[in-house]
Amino acid sequence: MKLQILGCYAATPRTLTNPTSQVLEIKNHMFLIDCGEGTQVQLRKHKIKFSRINHIFISHLHGDHFFGLPGLISTFRLLGRDRELHVYGPKGIKEAITLLLKLGDSWTNYPLLFHELTSKEPELLFEDDKITVETIPLNHRVYTNGFLFKEKLGERKLNVNAVAQYKIDKCYFQNIKNGKDITLNDGTRLSNTLLTFDPPKPKSYAFCSDTSFFPEIIGQIQEVDVLYHESTFLDSEGHLSERTKHATAKEAATIALKANVGMLILGHYSTRYKTIDLFKEEAMEIFPNVALADDGKVFEM
Amino acid sequence: MKLQILGCYAATPRTLTNPTSQVLEIKNHMFLIDCGEGTQVQLRKHKIKFSRINHIFISHLHGDHFFGLPGLISTFRLLGRDRELHVYGPKGIKEAITLLLKLGDSWTNYPLLFHELTSKEPELLFEDDKITVETIPLNHRVYTNGFLFKEKLGERKLNVNAVAQYKIDKCYFQNIKNGKDITLNDGTRLSNTLLTFDPPKPKSYAFCSDTSFFPEIIGQIQEVDVLYHESTFLDSEGHLSERTKHATAKEAATIALKANVGMLILGHYSTRYKTIDLFKEEAMEIFPNVALADDGKVFEM
Repeated sequence: MKLQILGCYAATPRTLTNPTSQVLEIKNHMFLIDCGEGTQVQLRKHKIKFSRINHIFISHLHGDHFFGLPGLISTFRLLGRDRELHVYGPKGIKEAITLLLKLGDSWTNYPLLFHELTSKEPELLFEDDKITVETIPLNHRVYTNGFLFKEKLGERKLNVNAVAQYKIDKCYFQNIKNGKDITLNDGTRLSNTLLTFDPPKPKSYAFCSDTSFFPEIIGQIQEVDVLYHESTFLDSEGHLSERTKHATAKEAATIALKANVGMLILGHYSTRYKTIDLFKEEAMEIFPNVALADDGKVFEM
Repeated sequence: MKLQILGCYAATPRTLTNPTSQVLEIKNHMFLIDCGEGTQVQLRKHKIKFSRINHIFISHLHGDHFFGLPGLISTFRLLGRDRELHVYGPKGIKEAITLLLKLGDSWTNYPLLFHELTSKEPELLFEDDKITVETIPLNHRVYTNGFLFKEKLGERKLNVNAVAQYKIDKCYFQNIKNGKDITLNDGTRLSNTLLTFDPPKPKSYAFCSDTSFFPEIIGQIQEVDVLYHESTFLDSEGHLSERTKHATAKEAATIALKANVGMLILGHYSTRYKTIDLFKEEAMEIFPNVALADDGKVFEM
């Protein structure tokens, strides 16, 4: 699992700071999460292949999270895309994008599929044999969802020495990896745990931006490996945070602590702050394992 | 008159090339012409004060000419703008921008005034005592206008020595500058040309992008000082140019020659070309005074 931050600053794009967008690589998928203005340039800058992006998740319809989407969708067309593109986002996103394309007489030549969200309860958005993606309803000024990406528990790992010792034929290997016990020709029954090791622990990533301090999410994100939580402000600007329905670094850390996550990544910093180091300091007073997102930064998990 | 190119490449924004946008400074106005994705970053990069922009002219509704507009309009709000902003562009622009703002519950706190264009004849969009701005109907795949910015003929310049010689009272100066003749107390009539010099020749700038080769514009842009004309392709790609309703460098130069303009600036280059020098070479075979637009370049006139 690999997370690349394309942009993680609040409000407007600037020369050196980009609005929210990130790419999550998980089990051969490349998911784009949010798409602020300039995201397509960030994708090029970080040499991410446009053709690998088939699913885009938009948290909410504030400009700093989706004004890069019309351009990216148009660029896909110019690049001759023919594969389906799935866009998940709040109701209204389809009308907006469709109108912009219509005005330019620029219909896509590939299937563009919108999945519009309205539920205030967690919803399963995507599932295959290896992962699931679900919404995390958040609390912001407009309807907003975070996204929870979870690997499924994989197959058990074959204990090569054990299967050799018992001279088990290859044709049983898949059953064994699926957790089945085996009966040998002489009638001996071998428990699966003799022949396999536990599969690797499935990884999980929760993206929570934008949101006020919202303890309702704690149950759903309990024990995720990595939590990205917005921290637009420091505690000293708590009044602004409340008014704008954003969170402080302290509040993000409190969520991380209560959800017992593996690691907290902070982001969505207000550009009022000269340096982002104070965010980490503030969060670490509450939760030990804190990292700072920054444009271009990669987190390998 | 000063023209700053913010972006002048066709299609999609890239790490080093920006889609169309430029700023024209003329008689204390700062006009933004087109607004491709990332324009607000280019404005910051070139230290152009956002507060000086009160009029935005959008040629047509292809993404590379207006996908930066929603973000810029939102940023104006975040910066606490209270002055009117006038946006001139094809019909549909108001609905699109309004929808995007509505989805984000982000109404502007300043008067945002749309002037929607539908006419296929030149229209006067703006006029004050010093300048006019009118549309130049172009021929592209969608409804498109160029824009013609013209200084008005200024006051005549007072010949300080002459008015001193004839001992003319100051209270007559404005009349003299307005071109009036003067009668002295002794009855002598002085022709205005004795007392003044001609005012400086008014300057003019024509922005023509995007368009196919369209000789219909020649009359309207006759003898402008500076013509910006798109040249998406070289003559060798004339077939693409025809199909996409763009122009070649050769065609842009032919327009410049026939309109007898002072200077031709080329732009809107397809990113298929490794270097833009060939555009200048091709155009100069037809018209002598050619300059190449490039992102960040400034033309002082």
